[in-house]
Amino acid sequence: MAFTDIATRTYDHGFRLDPIVRSLLDTDFYKLLMLQMIRHLYPDVQATFTLINRTKTVRLADTIDEGELRAQLDHARTVRFAKKELIWLAGNSFAGQERMFAPDFLAWLADFRLPDYDLRRVGGQFELQFAGPWTHTTMWEIPALTIVNELRSRAAMRDMGRFTLDILYARAKARLWDKVERLRALPDLILSDFGTRRRHGFLWQRWCVEAVKEGLGDRFIGTSNVLLAMDNDLEAIGTNAHELPMVIAALANDDAELRAAPYRVLDEWRRHYGGNLLIALPDAFGTAAFLADAPDWVADWTGFRPDSAPPIAAGDEIIRWWQAHGRDPAGKLLIFSDGMDVGSIEATYRHFDGRVRTSFGWGTNLTNDFRGCAPDGTTGLEPISLVAKVTSANGRPAVKLSDNPAKATGDPAEIARYLRVFGEAGRQASAVTV
Amino acid sequence: MAFTDIATRTYDHGFRLDPIVRSLLDTDFYKLLMLQMIRHLYPDVQATFTLINRTKTVRLADTIDEGELRAQLDHARTVRFAKKELIWLAGNSFAGQERMFAPDFLAWLADFRLPDYDLRRVGGQFELQFAGPWTHTTMWEIPALTIVNELRSRAAMRDMGRFTLDILYARAKARLWDKVERLRALPDLILSDFGTRRRHGFLWQRWCVEAVKEGLGDRFIGTSNVLLAMDNDLEAIGTNAHELPMVIAALANDDAELRAAPYRVLDEWRRHYGGNLLIALPDAFGTAAFLADAPDWVADWTGFRPDSAPPIAAGDEIIRWWQAHGRDPAGKLLIFSDGMDVGSIEATYRHFDGRVRTSFGWGTNLTNDFRGCAPDGTTGLEPISLVAKVTSANGRPAVKLSDNPAKATGDPAEIARYLRVFGEAGRQASAVTV
Repeated sequence: MAFTDIATRTYDHGFRLDPIVRSLLDTDFYKLLMLQMIRHLYPDVQATFTLINRTKTVRLADTIDEGELRAQLDHARTVRFAKKELIWLAGNSFAGQERMFAPDFLAWLADFRLPDYDLRRVGGQFELQFAGPWTHTTMWEIPALTIVNELRSRAAMRDMGRFTLDILYARAKARLWDKVERLRALPDLILSDFGTRRRHGFLWQRWCVEAVKEGLGDRFIGTSNVLLAMDNDLEAIGTNAHELPMVIAALANDDAELRAAPYRVLDEWRRHYGGNLLIALPDAFGTAAFLADAPDWVADWTGFRPDSAPPIAAGDEIIRWWQAHGRDPAGKLLIFSDGMDVGSIEATYRHFDGRVRTSFGWGTNLTNDFRGCAPDGTTGLEPISLVAKVTSANGRPAVKLSDNPAKATGDPAEIARYLRVFGEAGRQASAVTV
Repeated sequence: MAFTDIATRTYDHGFRLDPIVRSLLDTDFYKLLMLQMIRHLYPDVQATFTLINRTKTVRLADTIDEGELRAQLDHARTVRFAKKELIWLAGNSFAGQERMFAPDFLAWLADFRLPDYDLRRVGGQFELQFAGPWTHTTMWEIPALTIVNELRSRAAMRDMGRFTLDILYARAKARLWDKVERLRALPDLILSDFGTRRRHGFLWQRWCVEAVKEGLGDRFIGTSNVLLAMDNDLEAIGTNAHELPMVIAALANDDAELRAAPYRVLDEWRRHYGGNLLIALPDAFGTAAFLADAPDWVADWTGFRPDSAPPIAAGDEIIRWWQAHGRDPAGKLLIFSDGMDVGSIEATYRHFDGRVRTSFGWGTNLTNDFRGCAPDGTTGLEPISLVAKVTSANGRPAVKLSDNPAKATGDPAEIARYLRVFGEAGRQASAVTV
């Protein structure tokens, strides 16, 4: 005898859309922290975010139906913060601190909705832009990425039979667990999930997070995904991102203001937040330039998140800088989050073990590693390097140099100007795979 | 929003027993073929079947709760052939033949139920016996094995969390699919599922059968499990088993009748069945003795199922025997079913490719390979060598010698007598793992 819930089955007959974004908390925690500061300090700045597919060989518009993409983007615009979500943001402590979010900010969030978008098909790619107040466009970054990535996964799996899908997920689960067992060999590992933006899909990320929690216990300290943090009583992890120095730099009136922009951002950040949130991103315009010009108080911060240089070299450089500033690296923290996987986590962990505290933000290779898992040889499930970057602020072009020229974004003339201001020291090209 | 079928959930609250045997078709096809012949020729023979755990190191009675075992055995005794099952047995063709089962036999099956059992705990093992008419006790063989094996699996998994189970099955699925992909490299493979008796569990066997069907297509010719054959429109595979010569040998009145018993059985079989069912089991009392004394008409049979000698050696021996009898092996069939796995299937397939038709009955290593799959290191899921053998007929001890002394069963004095009658030629001990 088989019992079927007929009402559910009948509802499913009329299935129109399986929404990818079902909660505005399904975003990275840093977006909320940055948003609170942006709203206080830059409420009138207009910022445009643009989807950038660095994996040019993958023609997204040939894979993803434009109508489906619009339907998902439109649906995301109908989603509001639920009451229980705002209550949780108000009542939960973040990074050890109560009342991280001010009541006026939470009241403002209650009315928040994602602003409009501009979508065009150009050749085999989508041109997807979000223009408007920085306080609103910033919140599109993660939903835009999760929508496009999950639609791409769905397209790749559309023709798979039920059995093929079963093997696909069995293999992916077995693979992730093998990774977890390797990571268990690192006794003092500190790891968190940074895999929201390039995940295979929401349900898969949820499974991965639960798997890593089950397998690593206390060594898994949380997730950057606010919704998963809430639902699983995990710590929400994150601080700030490149968009802060990129916008402030874009707003600079001259080269001197441009050169000062990265430190101005940190100064504003430390006034807004303190404690465990004092993690600096050094690479927006090149780590070497950042460290060379940094005021001494930056060395008092908890640590750095090198995000585009090779991890061991970047960490060693920062350790030397701390030592040159008379600080003991043993009390400092390095967070590695640039395309990490088990091999690079192991190597980086072992290199720095006992010399500096390390923490790993495991992203795409945690939540989207289906390479070789499809039993029918289907391609299209390998992750691509998709980002949604701020491209202009108050009409001025925004630029990111990073330590890896392959990750630079922005207008070529502006990139040239930034390179003159910040210098080219320490920049090293390497392939960007995820 | 989550919808739950409240009625189902509430029914589950009162969960008492998850029955292992839910259909009398959940047995090996050869049981039904043999049963029809037993009922016609030996309706009055009393036969006792006994559970034998050859893996002495596994103390079944320390693992499986006696009350649970009784509850499952009792439940199996309540199960009858369903009307649709009898209709299917009547209407389906088996081995290419219509009306394999006579109407009077099917009418008799309609009233069939499993007879009583005798269960005792002795040390760390169960003594489980089924005494009564051969026409009834024979049908306990497979349910007794599936019940004990599945209860053992359940005991091993009792303390596993939901997540641990998820990884366990993901790994087992990934492993089976890797095996399927290896087998795909054998273009003329003929494979069937023989894994009912030592399966991990019914649902797992069903998944394995569906997986192999999906992965191997026409190279997967069917399953010995009658229920799975019916449900999946697969061919039911099987012919006869050792119990036939064992009982006829036990009933022999002197050594001459004993020596003739294996051929008498075949003669009775060919009168009952013909065509594709003419597959001889040569090893009940040693293949060498069987071949040496076999009448010439045995060489007209379709083929042999060597079941205890090393497959390549056994096949070569049979090929030489066919040649000595002037038959062309190229038109003959060898069915290998003794503890086969991908490696031995590959080797055996390649050895005989082009010289004789081969077919593989894949059993325990198909439906119960969880070795190393438990993420928590739990043991107890590795298969054991459990059989349910006929041990006496009309009060006389039944004996099996086989080609492997480790697989011999019976009273030691009787074994000695059989060895005198049949000789010891060609017997070779090897470890019995499954």
